[in-house]
Amino acid sequence: MGTALLTDRYELTMLQAALADGTADRHCVFEVFTRRLPSWRRYGVLAGTGRVLELLPTFRFEADDLEWLAQARVVDDRTLDYLAGYRFTGEIRGYAEGEAFFPSSPVMVVEGTFAEAVLLETLVLSVLNYDSAVASAASRMTSAAAGRPCLEMGSRRAHERAAVAAARAAFVAGFAGTSNLEAGRRYGLATIGTAAHAFTLLHDDETNAFRSQVASAGSSTTLLVDTYDVTRGVERAIQVAGTGLGAVRLDSGDLGVQAVEVRRQLDQLGATGTRITVTSDLDEYAIASLAASPVDSYGVGTKLVTGSGAPTCGMVYKLVAREGASGELEPVAKTSASKTSVGGRKSAARQIGDDGRAVAEVIVDGPADQVAAWVSDSADLRPLHQPLVTDGVVDSRWVGAPGVRAAADRHQRSRDELPRGARRLSTGDVAIPTTTLTLD
Amino acid sequence: MGTALLTDRYELTMLQAALADGTADRHCVFEVFTRRLPSWRRYGVLAGTGRVLELLPTFRFEADDLEWLAQARVVDDRTLDYLAGYRFTGEIRGYAEGEAFFPSSPVMVVEGTFAEAVLLETLVLSVLNYDSAVASAASRMTSAAAGRPCLEMGSRRAHERAAVAAARAAFVAGFAGTSNLEAGRRYGLATIGTAAHAFTLLHDDETNAFRSQVASAGSSTTLLVDTYDVTRGVERAIQVAGTGLGAVRLDSGDLGVQAVEVRRQLDQLGATGTRITVTSDLDEYAIASLAASPVDSYGVGTKLVTGSGAPTCGMVYKLVAREGASGELEPVAKTSASKTSVGGRKSAARQIGDDGRAVAEVIVDGPADQVAAWVSDSADLRPLHQPLVTDGVVDSRWVGAPGVRAAADRHQRSRDELPRGARRLSTGDVAIPTTTLTLD
Repeated sequence: MGTALLTDRYELTMLQAALADGTADRHCVFEVFTRRLPSWRRYGVLAGTGRVLELLPTFRFEADDLEWLAQARVVDDRTLDYLAGYRFTGEIRGYAEGEAFFPSSPVMVVEGTFAEAVLLETLVLSVLNYDSAVASAASRMTSAAAGRPCLEMGSRRAHERAAVAAARAAFVAGFAGTSNLEAGRRYGLATIGTAAHAFTLLHDDETNAFRSQVASAGSSTTLLVDTYDVTRGVERAIQVAGTGLGAVRLDSGDLGVQAVEVRRQLDQLGATGTRITVTSDLDEYAIASLAASPVDSYGVGTKLVTGSGAPTCGMVYKLVAREGASGELEPVAKTSASKTSVGGRKSAARQIGDDGRAVAEVIVDGPADQVAAWVSDSADLRPLHQPLVTDGVVDSRWVGAPGVRAAADRHQRSRDELPRGARRLSTGDVAIPTTTLTLD
Repeated sequence: MGTALLTDRYELTMLQAALADGTADRHCVFEVFTRRLPSWRRYGVLAGTGRVLELLPTFRFEADDLEWLAQARVVDDRTLDYLAGYRFTGEIRGYAEGEAFFPSSPVMVVEGTFAEAVLLETLVLSVLNYDSAVASAASRMTSAAAGRPCLEMGSRRAHERAAVAAARAAFVAGFAGTSNLEAGRRYGLATIGTAAHAFTLLHDDETNAFRSQVASAGSSTTLLVDTYDVTRGVERAIQVAGTGLGAVRLDSGDLGVQAVEVRRQLDQLGATGTRITVTSDLDEYAIASLAASPVDSYGVGTKLVTGSGAPTCGMVYKLVAREGASGELEPVAKTSASKTSVGGRKSAARQIGDDGRAVAEVIVDGPADQVAAWVSDSADLRPLHQPLVTDGVVDSRWVGAPGVRAAADRHQRSRDELPRGARRLSTGDVAIPTTTLTLD
């Protein structure tokens, strides 16, 4: 499926005017950043970079796209001609997927002619805003879970394709698996799931349902024990599966209280190895509140795929520098009330203290070679910008299943590097300040 | 693109067990409903029905799907054989798209064998939960706008494919157009958009940018006047385009105050017909607060595509009746704490008072023929269930661009029919109570 029409109309109308007035070829630098984090977040988690890169080669205007654009009179013939040959041939740099980010972090920088870079705004932002919203929420959940596995089960509460991206983003931020089969296939994620209440209700009684499930899936399965009465459900589960039952799932009621009761019952029945998994409107706070309960894993749905209070990030795609009439690259910035942007082609690094923990986000503005030299000469700076696309060619290490696995590893390191207070769930300041430095 | 793997793994593992124990063929009735609305909503708006029906024929397990399921050992060979031949051959009834709904409204009812109906849970819920979340928010926005056009511009703040669904759902709830080109193409929606700040910044100065845009798009275009100073921007806009300029757009600052100032300035310049469109973090409350301001249209983004505080609906897909060992259809229900379901194959009607306004949501449980006769004999009941799929065949009037247009008309009627208090934005009770009636 092509992605070229997943685009706001104004990108094409701007292109038409720029092709006509000769500015379409001006070299431009667009920067993706967010102005602020939700008040209760101390860091954001970048996700979706790999998906942007996977989608980039599909951003082509095919014959049927062009036909519709012509018929709907979106743009003129000259613009249609340009679009017919469209290929992104520029450069994309940015934070590697899984990195923490902060206000003003230039998480992605797209360079090319105005024509080729302006068209990517909507696609880039759609992917990064949604995926990062999910990953930023997911990271707080896996942090609150303190090592107990978190499992993604939110597909039904997200658009059917967004659900696949959500499963991927959750994995980047430490989730152990997903219920979503397509995410399992496409990104090599572990898939999980055994039965819903409907399976119990389908059968003449709970015992018959459990027998059927154990016969089909073995006694290592997870039995859902709260369709009727939890105590009777646990009793029947062990009667049917024996003390080797893999797990029971609780999906209702006061999970903390029930987990204690069920653990006691399982132990009394001799099922000391049977685990307890809980699902039901969990978020990072509910997970934290269950820390002392005998829960073995968390299934998280709604709150995960909707970003736990922040269903999108506020990332924007702003022109920060462009070739002027002289042919030189010049910084540009708007001065709109409360929505200013800062001009200049920037790079970024994380300043690391003597204890190995992050101290500041350092954004560096200046000529590319000077910035690179300065960052590499500074022992306390970890450079954040990586080459993602060079001369239009995507660097394959960021995409597909290997890209996702690497991003998950990277997120763990990036989060471990943050100051200790960064994992607090309470409202408060961002974990590290952002400082800006101009070299010239 | 196939949709069969946009599914939670447990649906397939349940299927495997049911195929093995002989219950897979039991006739089942699954019901989609929500337990509650967000506290500040007096009604919900059903959207996505047409999309469910469009996606249903693509729910096929193709060779590559089956190959992956086998390789990942999700299900056994017998189940793979069943999936290879999977076609939904059952019935789907439900509320027509655009209807208002309330807690417990049975907005969709899926009937078929357990095997064929259980597999649709995730896809049906993903579509209805997201699309209805957007439409429910959108309806409050168009209501608050009181006839001024609302335009959808939120693609960048939603997953790239969800953005298309959001534009469609917004249109169902009264939006006049969208920035999203794919939504324009697929559903015949009007597309809008002229220029971003980047276009002004690309040029050597604002006047040059405006000249270029007017040369390309004509003086009926909308010029974005807040890149630098709004007063100077408006002055330049009229200098360049003349007093016949179509509109100016304000995207920052205090929109209410600015609209007054800009209106006065435009009138003084003689541009009395030039409209003012505003964009910038609008939601239903911001729109309501601008009711007395000289604003001509609203562009809405983030809050629309994220459901303005409720980014998903809480719709669930519950087994409410199934064929028992005797071969008779029997109501079934779970009794889990705070998550009970009500058994029985139900229909629904809206009770209308003498003033033509809705009085109650009436859910009727009983034999299909008796329910139908009772509803049609009751002069004050408007039946809500429509046939959507019969013997596996989708009724074409609900899908595509015609389906969306009909849903938008229907929503307007359904909203007009609600009690007058239903449009209040404040927190409060749902607009009408839900009552349940059992015939036998």
